[in-house]
Amino acid sequence: MPDHVYRIIEVAGSATTSIEDAIQNAVSRASRTLRGINWFEVLQTRGQVEAGKLQYQVVLKVGFTLEEP
Amino acid sequence: MPDHVYRIIEVAGSATTSIEDAIQNAVSRASRTLRGINWFEVLQTRGQVEAGKLQYQVVLKVGFTLEEP
Amino acid sequence: MPDHVYRIIEVAGSATTSIEDAIQNAVSRASRTLRGINWFEVLQTRGQVEAGKLQYQVVLKVGFTLEEP
Amino acid sequence: MPDHVYRIIEVAGSATTSIEDAIQNAVSRASRTLRGINWFEVLQTRGQVEAGKLQYQVVLKVGFTLEEP
Amino acid sequence: MPDHVYRIIEVAGSATTSIEDAIQNAVSRASRTLRGINWFEVLQTRGQVEAGKLQYQVVLKVGFTLEEP
Amino acid sequence: MPDHVYRIIEVAGSATTSIEDAIQNAVSRASRTLRGINWFEVLQTRGQVEAGKLQYQVVLKVGFTLEEP
Amino acid sequence: MPDHVYRIIEVAGSATTSIEDAIQNAVSRASRTLRGINWFEVLQTRGQVEAGKLQYQVVLKVGFTLEEP
Amino acid sequence: MPDHVYRIIEVAGSATTSIEDAIQNAVSRASRTLRGINWFEVLQTRGQVEAGKLQYQVVLKVGFTLEEP
Amino acid sequence: MPDHVYRIIEVAGSATTSIEDAIQNAVSRASRTLRGINWFEVLQTRGQVEAGKLQYQVVLKVGFTLEEP
Amino acid sequence: MPDHVYRIIEVAGSATTSIEDAIQNAVSRASRTLRGINWFEVLQTRGQVEAGKLQYQVVLKVGFTLEEP
Amino acid sequence: MPDHVYRIIEVAGSATTSIEDAIQNAVSRASRTLRGINWFEVLQTRGQVEAGKLQYQVVLKVGFTLEEP
Amino acid sequence: MPDHVYRIIEVAGSATTSIEDAIQNAVSRASRTLRGINWFEVLQTRGQVEAGKLQYQVVLKVGFTLEEP
Repeated sequence: MPDHVYRIIEVAGSATTSIEDAIQNAVSRASRTLRGINWFEVLQTRGQVEAGKLQYQVVLKVGFTLEEP
Repeated sequence: MPDHVYRIIEVAGSATTSIEDAIQNAVSRASRTLRGINWFEVLQTRGQVEAGKLQYQVVLKVGFTLEEP
Repeated sequence: MPDHVYRIIEVAGSATTSIEDAIQNAVSRASRTLRGINWFEVLQTRGQVEAGKLQYQVVLKVGFTLEEP
Repeated sequence: MPDHVYRIIEVAGSATTSIEDAIQNAVSRASRTLRGINWFEVLQTRGQVEAGKLQYQVVLKVGFTLEEP
Repeated sequence: MPDHVYRIIEVAGSATTSIEDAIQNAVSRASRTLRGINWFEVLQTRGQVEAGKLQYQVVLKVGFTLEEP
Repeated sequence: MPDHVYRIIEVAGSATTSIEDAIQNAVSRASRTLRGINWFEVLQTRGQVEAGKLQYQVVLKVGFTLEEP
Repeated sequence: MPDHVYRIIEVAGSATTSIEDAIQNAVSRASRTLRGINWFEVLQTRGQVEAGKLQYQVVLKVGFTLEEP
Repeated sequence: MPDHVYRIIEVAGSATTSIEDAIQNAVSRASRTLRGINWFEVLQTRGQVEAGKLQYQVVLKVGFTLEEP
Repeated sequence: MPDHVYRIIEVAGSATTSIEDAIQNAVSRASRTLRGINWFEVLQTRGQVEAGKLQYQVVLKVGFTLEEP
Repeated sequence: MPDHVYRIIEVAGSATTSIEDAIQNAVSRASRTLRGINWFEVLQTRGQVEAGKLQYQVVLKVGFTLEEP
Repeated sequence: MPDHVYRIIEVAGSATTSIEDAIQNAVSRASRTLRGINWFEVLQTRGQVEAGKLQYQVVLKVGFTLEEP
Repeated sequence: MPDHVYRIIEVAGSATTSIEDAIQNAVSRASRTLRGINWFEVLQTRGQVEAGKLQYQVVLKVGFTLEEP
């Protein structure tokens, strides 16, 4: 169990298809600028309704290991 | 950014197929008597178990714009 | 397990006799205008004090099945 | 201390001028269709930002006495 | 409405396919040693990220009726 | 103040007579299989409504001292 | 609606008879040293179990109007 | 960074003019009997409605340094 | 409803004049280094007291759309 | 199980050495003016950072038995 | 990332020496009857005061992997 | 009381020795890339268990003053 430090940021993603796709979109986008993402936690699941269609939105905490500066 | 007032009510829906279908069922039913629904938030996700089968149940806050009385 | 949709409203009732009577008063009054009430949840128990006498007040969530519109 | 029953609903209002004006807008609008509103509680204070300008939005619980049906 | 007593335990399950499968895995596993499971509630939805792939993890409360000892 | 370790479980009980009877039912039933129960905490008070009659339901945390295995 | 300032303190009371008696005991004791108590709120309901007997304990917030110093 | 001990009390104030005035009223009144108040935190913002007029009420935590007894 | 991803950060601002000015200061400062801020939420309202004068402090969540990297 | 009433106050203490010392400092200081302190609960653990040095700060609820007035 | 199911129980431990020792005592005792404990989370830190001496008490969630039944 | 704006981020640190060391590790690592860190708050204390050995993990909010951009 080596000691480690990680940072946690908050991102939100959306998808019209499913909650899982909204999560995937948020994690994928965050991964483009951050290395070492290894977990997420769903803080809030919400959505918009337009003409009977739903868009799912998730707010996530995302954790990533801090590398040496 | 025009000022607006909306109301928020709480509804619960269920489905044996998926969490998304439970949400859709609740929003669809609420839309039959309320106009102007434009967002929802999932407050609770739960369910029943019967003979190994799951039924998903979601409790939602649903917001709709108040029209002129 | 048939799918169903219900609505949840918030009411408050009071009684000088007991917490149970305060709950009963709130549910009874709500039942006069709403059909299909089938559960309640106590959100808050509080009260007023006047000349050493207590009045119990409960805030409840009350759920009722939505019938076809 | 006569026993009484009241109902609690959730409304949201907005204003570009102040948080107090957003509260006032929500209460005023609710008063147009509901009689007997006597208290409110702020659940959430948030807002939108557009070109550096803020619009305050408040989500309120509003309580009103239930009259005899 | 016969009086009954039930117990509530906490379990966590995971799946790479969907949140619903993670729930199903946890309930199925708990059912192997406990009889009378009849409801669950999702306490937390989280997950792990490995090489861009997500694994969904849910923490559940699971309720089951206590039979006579 | 000798060091001690205790375990905490969650049980739910019900009664049509009072909240105190619902608590008593849950604690009594738990005591049949567990020794050393010494405290409880009410997590939730709720109930069912059937033909105007209420059934009170309480969810409790119950703590009991762990004896030597 | 004259402006007023009140203070809020936290007290706990107990009774073996009922939750209402535990509340009454706490409010009565607080009233012996504080004037102007006009409301209370139940923060926690818990209790002790001894030889199958329950003692109810409530933790309350109690509010009282501040008189001129 | 010298070690220090402070106490935290809860007070509520009101004003018909603004939330800030309600805070100011509560802090001013508390300062008349307590020395060393150096911070506050708003726990709740609520109010009363009378004939369309609002009275803002705030519940605050107020911290003050404990001097030597 | 195009899918979008946004990030949420936490900032705190202060002002001696009003809560709204404290919010404005925090949003303005954040806007100097971040593009695309479109909403905020007040997490906490607190303040300092010095010689009877108040300084309002707000802790905000601020959301901004993530542009293509 | 004799009935008893106790009061609960909130205090904060600090120490540069450890969280336990910060707790001890707060309880010791409270004990100088209050008799009958018998339990505490940690509400918040925080601290200040100055030139790389930490000062631990704890906010506690402290309960003490109310003696006859 | 193989799918797995674990269970989460709640235990409390105490120690007069430090918070860490109270945690260690609770985990050690739980490990005597449960195999596969791999994480814990502190839910509450509290304690008793007797003649100026403190006893630290921690309430923990403890997670352990469910093996094949 | 000059107005100031600060930012709050979330970091997690670990240590096998003590909770204080886990806090120190997280703050030290964050200080390597951020200037002006002046406070922290513990959001969560948890840990891992491996062969009877504990590793403490803390999740912190860390605040630092925003300098002129």
